[in-house]
This record gives sequence, C-alpha cells and structure tokens, in this order.
Amino acid sequence: MKEKFNQIIESVKTARRILITSHLDPDGDSIGSQLALKGWLMDSGKEVRIINQGKIPSKYLFLDEEKAIEDFDSAKAIDWSADLIFVLECPNLERIGEVKKLLKEGSKVINLDHHPDNSFFGDISYVDTQACALGGIIYGLLTSAGYHLDKRIATQLYAAILTDTGRFRFSNTTPEALRIGAELINLGANPREINNQIYYNSSNASLKLLGFLLLNLETFANGKISFLVIDQQTMEELKVSKEDTEGFVDYSLFLKGAEVGVLFTQKNDSKTKVSLRSQNSFDVSAL
Amino acid sequence: MKEKFNQIIESVKTARRILITSHLDPDGDSIGSQLALKGWLMDSGKEVRIINQGKIPSKYLFLDEEKAIEDFDSAKAIDWSADLIFVLECPNLERIGEVKKLLKEGSKVINLDHHPDNSFFGDISYVDTQACALGGIIYGLLTSAGYHLDKRIATQLYAAILTDTGRFRFSNTTPEALRIGAELINLGANPREINNQIYYNSSNASLKLLGFLLLNLETFANGKISFLVIDQQTMEELKVSKEDTEGFVDYSLFLKGAEVGVLFTQKNDSKTKVSLRSQNSFDVSAL
Repeated sequence: MKEKFNQIIESVKTARRILITSHLDPDGDSIGSQLALKGWLMDSGKEVRIINQGKIPSKYLFLDEEKAIEDFDSAKAIDWSADLIFVLECPNLERIGEVKKLLKEGSKVINLDHHPDNSFFGDISYVDTQACALGGIIYGLLTSAGYHLDKRIATQLYAAILTDTGRFRFSNTTPEALRIGAELINLGANPREINNQIYYNSSNASLKLLGFLLLNLETFANGKISFLVIDQQTMEELKVSKEDTEGFVDYSLFLKGAEVGVLFTQKNDSKTKVSLRSQNSFDVSAL
Repeated sequence: MKEKFNQIIESVKTARRILITSHLDPDGDSIGSQLALKGWLMDSGKEVRIINQGKIPSKYLFLDEEKAIEDFDSAKAIDWSADLIFVLECPNLERIGEVKKLLKEGSKVINLDHHPDNSFFGDISYVDTQACALGGIIYGLLTSAGYHLDKRIATQLYAAILTDTGRFRFSNTTPEALRIGAELINLGANPREINNQIYYNSSNASLKLLGFLLLNLETFANGKISFLVIDQQTMEELKVSKEDTEGFVDYSLFLKGAEVGVLFTQKNDSKTKVSLRSQNSFDVSAL
C-alpha cells in the first residue's frame, strides 16, 4: 500500500488543478477527509476545489471554516475542470452524481476508499478495507508525504474517524482508529469540542421531536424490533425540518434487547421514508 | 511513579488476604478497575474480596460475571479482615463509608487515585492527576507487574476508561486514554459490545421517561441554562425507578448553546434532587 501512496504523491507533484469530490450527501468521514486532503494539496501549491452534490449537514460546518466545500447543485454553471481528481468513498464514478460533468477527457482519477464494494475504477485505486475510516487512509497518505498536520487538519481527521466509527463504537473501532486518534489529539484535536459540535448541538425543536419519538416508541417481536414514528402533522406542530431528524434512527436501538430499529418519517399521504439500523450482525441492507 | 508501582507490587507479594474497596455508589471507572485489580491478585494466589457500600448499577453487571463485588449494606455481618487494602478513587478514608469497619489495626492501606483532591492518606499513596482514569493507572500497574491481561480484564479496563472519559469525550480523553484503549482492543476488548451494554441498554420505561423530559425541556438565560424536570407522579405513571434516570442529566446539554444543564427529580413534596452538568469550564461544584 506504501507503493500506492508513493504513486499518489507523484501524481500530485505533476498536477496543477485538483478536484476533490465524494458521494452524494457527504457524511462526516467524507467531509473531514476532503478538507484534510485539501489542506495538504493547497500547502503543496495546487489550485484545489472541493465539489460535491449535496449540502453538508450544519453540524459539520465548523470543520470548514473557510467555506471551501461547494455544492454542485447551487453552483451549476461551473466552468472549471481539473487535471487530477480525488474521488473519496465511492464504489463507482456514478456515486459522485452530477459532479461527473466536471471530468474532462484525460483527467487522472484517484479512487480512495475503505468499503469492500469498491469497483476499483480510476487510474489509481487505493482501497483498504482494513482501514478504520477514510480519515485513517488520509492520515496515512499525509504522513507518508511528510506533511505536518496542524490543529485544523488534526480536527478534520479526528471528526472523520469519530463519526465513521460511531463515536468509537462500531466494528471499525480498531486499535488503529484509537492509535490515530491519540496522535491527532497530540497534534491539537480537542475531543470535547469536536464531540460537542457534532453530538451536543441540537435545536430545541429537534430535542422536543426526539422526546415525542421516545415517548411513543413501539416494539414488536418481543422487543427485538423497535419503531419510532413521526408524521408530517407532528413535525409541523413541533416546527422541525428534515435535518432535525438526522441520526434519530440510532435511538431506536437504545432499548435493551432491540436488534433492529426503524424510523418511519411520514412525508405526505402517499410517501413514508423508512430508516433502518441493526444492532449486531443483522444485515438491514438485505431487506 | 514506576518506583511506587514497585512498592505496591512488593506489598502484594507479602500479603495474604486483600480487600479492594472504593467510594460509595461505585461508578464505571471504579467497578472496572476493582475487577481488573482482583483478577491480577487472584492469579497471584491471594485471597481477595471486593466490598463497597452501595450496589453496582445494573448496566455494569456484565463486567462482573463471577458476581465478585459485594455490597457492604447487604452483607453486614462480615467477619473478615484483610492485611492489605486497596482503596480506589477516594479523596480520604471517610469516602469508603461503612467498609471502614473492616480495617483492622495494622492493615496496610494502598491509596490509588487520579483526582486532585486526594489527601494522600494510607501507607502507599499513588495519585496521578495526569492519568486519564483510574483504569489507566491499573493498566499501568498490571503491565508493570508483567501480568498478562486476558479478554475479560481488557474489557473491565476498557469500560473503566470509556465511562470515566464520557465515551472519549471529556477533557481526560488524553492521547494516553486512546493509546491504552487501542492496546485493550488488541487484547480482546470489544468496543461495540461494551458500548451496547453500557449505553444501549435502556428499559422501555426509561426511554419513555427520557422522551417526557425532552418534550418538556425548558431553557433559561437565553438558552445557556436548560432544565429537565421529573415529578414523582410522572415517574409513577411511567413506572420508572430512580435507576432509570441515571445519566439523564447529560441530555440537558444536547441543546446547542447550553452551558449548564439541570435535572430536577422531585421526590416528594418537600424534597427535590438536583443534578448539574456544565459544558465547558463552568464549575458546577462551586454552586
């Protein structure tokens, strides 16, 4: 894998304009990783843009002090193309959505991922399914390049690993995840501030909604399945928006013995969004 | 500090009967640390008992498979005394409560702590205020003694550090906390199982109570102070007990901008329990 890092570092040396992108509706790992990668590339004297399709959730805005991340949807007339493109956490190029329009003939594509369903697209594919998170791979790449991580970049990578491991809880909470976390704290990442920004930053409306959901929690199959249900009328009464429900499906698994949790968000008479979570090895994506 | 560890290891060698105790109403750090310490001492051929005043919360019972921890209150007629006593996480001997009755003339006391208010009582005092948790000190002691930590003991120490750092969030989430965590995972601790046991193990009644609290959250001083209020009647209606409210004060700080959170538990007409939490440097113990 060291060899692959060297190939990437060489490709960066000869590049002039670099695009960083990731999957639709970027998450914490993707956002933190993109920003850290941009920090290194900018300090290497490159022209760099981060463009995704989909806005970044407000809880991650603190990572992007310079407002570097652009939303393709709200910047449709982008007359810009890059000679090198980093595609992060995508199984294939389709997952970057409309951003694909920015790829020109001859652009070199670097594919970085830690998921096993990656199709190894691109000119250089670095797929490490043992890595704790994409943030772990970016940490490895930046340190391999001899780059000095400052507090800002340490914070971005800590947030990436923290969110992807579910606050050091999911099965990707490997010794590597905690060892890199320790190094990032040494470099200035502040676990309290980062946790507060991401997990202790709810609106009053959002907490009331959570209260409503928990008070009305329903169980099924001897408590192995738990349901949280929100209807449109309640959302309007509590003055909450779609973003206020983000992550709430996790609370369906707070119940002792719950193996599968479901959040039903009733959007209108004909449409209901269903979010699923499973506790152990139950594969909800197979449903 | 290495010198102190050696003194403790020497004291253990010459001891025959060893008592491990900690403060009233033991918490996760104290429970995990006591059990890990007992594992080492038992494997060193000693007669060992853990006796505290106060029951251990049910969420920590999985750490004590052998039901080794005894509650002084429910075993009053203890006709037993030790020649060596480990006192964990206590500022002074008063904090072990009734367990003090088990100290006999000439018992050697070892005082292990990481809090700055420790009064350095005992024959050997090891107080490391830089340690991430008592679990970190016990990890250091056991590895200094050349003891091989198995999965069970790694789990106990991981739980100790995890709970004392507030899931790797509080200011004691030092690089050491994560580095030791990484080692404990290598030794068999399973972050997912441990987190699920401690944090995703609520009763239905307890979740309904949390729902009620959040739905009725009140704020004060421009949202800087948030209140959660439970009265006796609601507790009876929701069929919840005192234990179901444990840790709920933390939710008062989920609100964006909240600096101080308060949980009022109204016990009867004349008594209300007040629990406080602060977000940053606000010292609620000064109130």
